[in-house]
Amino acid sequence: MAGEADFIAALRHIANDPMARGLADDAAVLGDLVLTHDMIVEGVHFLRDDPPADVAWKLVAVNLSDLAGKGAWPIAVLLGYTLAGDPAWDEAFLAGLSDVLARFGVALAGGDTVAVPAGTPRTLGLTAIGRAPAGHTPARAGASPGDMVFVAGTIGDAGAGLAIARGHVHGPTALLDAYRRPVPLLDVGRALAPHVTAMMDVSDGLLIDASRLAEASGISLEIDLDRVPLSPALIEHLGDDRDARLRAAVAGDDYALLFTASGTSEVRLLGICEPFRVRLTRIGSAASGAGLTLCDRDGTVPLPGRLGYEHGTDG
Amino acid sequence: MAGEADFIAALRHIANDPMARGLADDAAVLGDLVLTHDMIVEGVHFLRDDPPADVAWKLVAVNLSDLAGKGAWPIAVLLGYTLAGDPAWDEAFLAGLSDVLARFGVALAGGDTVAVPAGTPRTLGLTAIGRAPAGHTPARAGASPGDMVFVAGTIGDAGAGLAIARGHVHGPTALLDAYRRPVPLLDVGRALAPHVTAMMDVSDGLLIDASRLAEASGISLEIDLDRVPLSPALIEHLGDDRDARLRAAVAGDDYALLFTASGTSEVRLLGICEPFRVRLTRIGSAASGAGLTLCDRDGTVPLPGRLGYEHGTDG
Repeated sequence: MAGEADFIAALRHIANDPMARGLADDAAVLGDLVLTHDMIVEGVHFLRDDPPADVAWKLVAVNLSDLAGKGAWPIAVLLGYTLAGDPAWDEAFLAGLSDVLARFGVALAGGDTVAVPAGTPRTLGLTAIGRAPAGHTPARAGASPGDMVFVAGTIGDAGAGLAIARGHVHGPTALLDAYRRPVPLLDVGRALAPHVTAMMDVSDGLLIDASRLAEASGISLEIDLDRVPLSPALIEHLGDDRDARLRAAVAGDDYALLFTASGTSEVRLLGICEPFRVRLTRIGSAASGAGLTLCDRDGTVPLPGRLGYEHGTDG
Repeated sequence: MAGEADFIAALRHIANDPMARGLADDAAVLGDLVLTHDMIVEGVHFLRDDPPADVAWKLVAVNLSDLAGKGAWPIAVLLGYTLAGDPAWDEAFLAGLSDVLARFGVALAGGDTVAVPAGTPRTLGLTAIGRAPAGHTPARAGASPGDMVFVAGTIGDAGAGLAIARGHVHGPTALLDAYRRPVPLLDVGRALAPHVTAMMDVSDGLLIDASRLAEASGISLEIDLDRVPLSPALIEHLGDDRDARLRAAVAGDDYALLFTASGTSEVRLLGICEPFRVRLTRIGSAASGAGLTLCDRDGTVPLPGRLGYEHGTDG
């Protein structure tokens, strides 16, 4: 086994039950229940000096975002926690955990706590359990040629926030908040689910996640970089040229929703999202073939060498 | 927050939904679903040179054992895996994972894989999802004064196997197997569940787990050390005196079932277990009060200073 790609391929071979969706989705579907498990590792997915309450928020939010992408409503979580010999950190983490669970109305139902040797990077796992109408859980694999492609939310804020958190640059608090306290689009996901052909949350970067949706659906996607929704704070911070837009499109931690739709209208979808005050933007279309095509007002944009964060290798 | 006990107490405060059972049970109950999440950490719950396929077996088995204690039948698991830069280890782990899932008929439904810096101890998490008749999931908290106390399975084999695995002593393969490839008593648990007042799996040591059952039920338990079921291999290895029995009763990793019953007979329960060729032993009785009392043919046995493995502190 040569490395991580082989490992995941071998896992897929084991995960041959339909509920696993070939491990090509963000969650498993078991009747009307949707289950997801994401881990975050200190030094990989969060910084050693990130506030512990924000780490708790993020651990829950990234898992709830997977449920949002499946149109599921969260019910409960199970926490896997490593005690690393810093009670003040643990106490602050729990305060954040309590906050985020209360904010999204989710129960802590169980889990496990293990003491690890001092100096071990914290490895935190969360299983989130949600409910969705059986048979109405959008997959990554449902897009067809001709479908419209949309993003709900904005792209790139958290990536800029990470650079601010690392102390590389100064910038607006809104961007730092987007990195530290992402808000899963649960109500939007649930409202959109019956109207989409495919949906997923954008967690590793718009371009890499779009390429995954294209691959799972067996189609190609054409994305208009000029239409990728950037927030006013990000435009103020990074500018609005091709470079800035490409940086946003490969940054991770957005927790926006990417979806495809057909047999409906953009106006109708805008109406569905309107009560939630979430920006909805048509960014492209699906076609036959494979892979991504990127364009802007000046024509075709070459794909960057790195489309986002590869699963588990960095971030 | 002074330490781990405070951390768990604070978690309980957050976990105030009935499905969490006050975090005083081995699993969460959500309608007819039973969910559990256990982690195992390299150097804490398994040895660095344990065969990776056995580590996979154990990760699955310890979680399925929690389901067995609730009378639930396993459906699926979600895996949280850390890639620590050793593809040969990962490949052997996956072979073991495939074996154990096939052996118990459980689907791999999803999860997460994260690369961690080289040298980081592996932290492996598993969420197991099982099904049990709604309303018939025995808790730790159901025992009453006068109940009979039973163990299904044998006690102490894995603890002796751990000493063999560590190279401290030589001993029978059966004990090493009990440590490396524990077998969750799923069919026995399911058959017993309708007939018990309280049930849990024995994972951290018979005495500590019995004290937890007593605490959750608000009763005391009297255990006859002479009746604690030791396997022929363990008796051959350790002997059968009070010291040997005490060592067995505080060793972990048994994955036997501890339960209480009333309104039925020992003969009837023996008949229920008989098809599964699992030893069933009445080891004591419940009374009012709190805590454990231990006796043997010579009278009262002072409780050892350490009743088993404290949650997450060692093992």
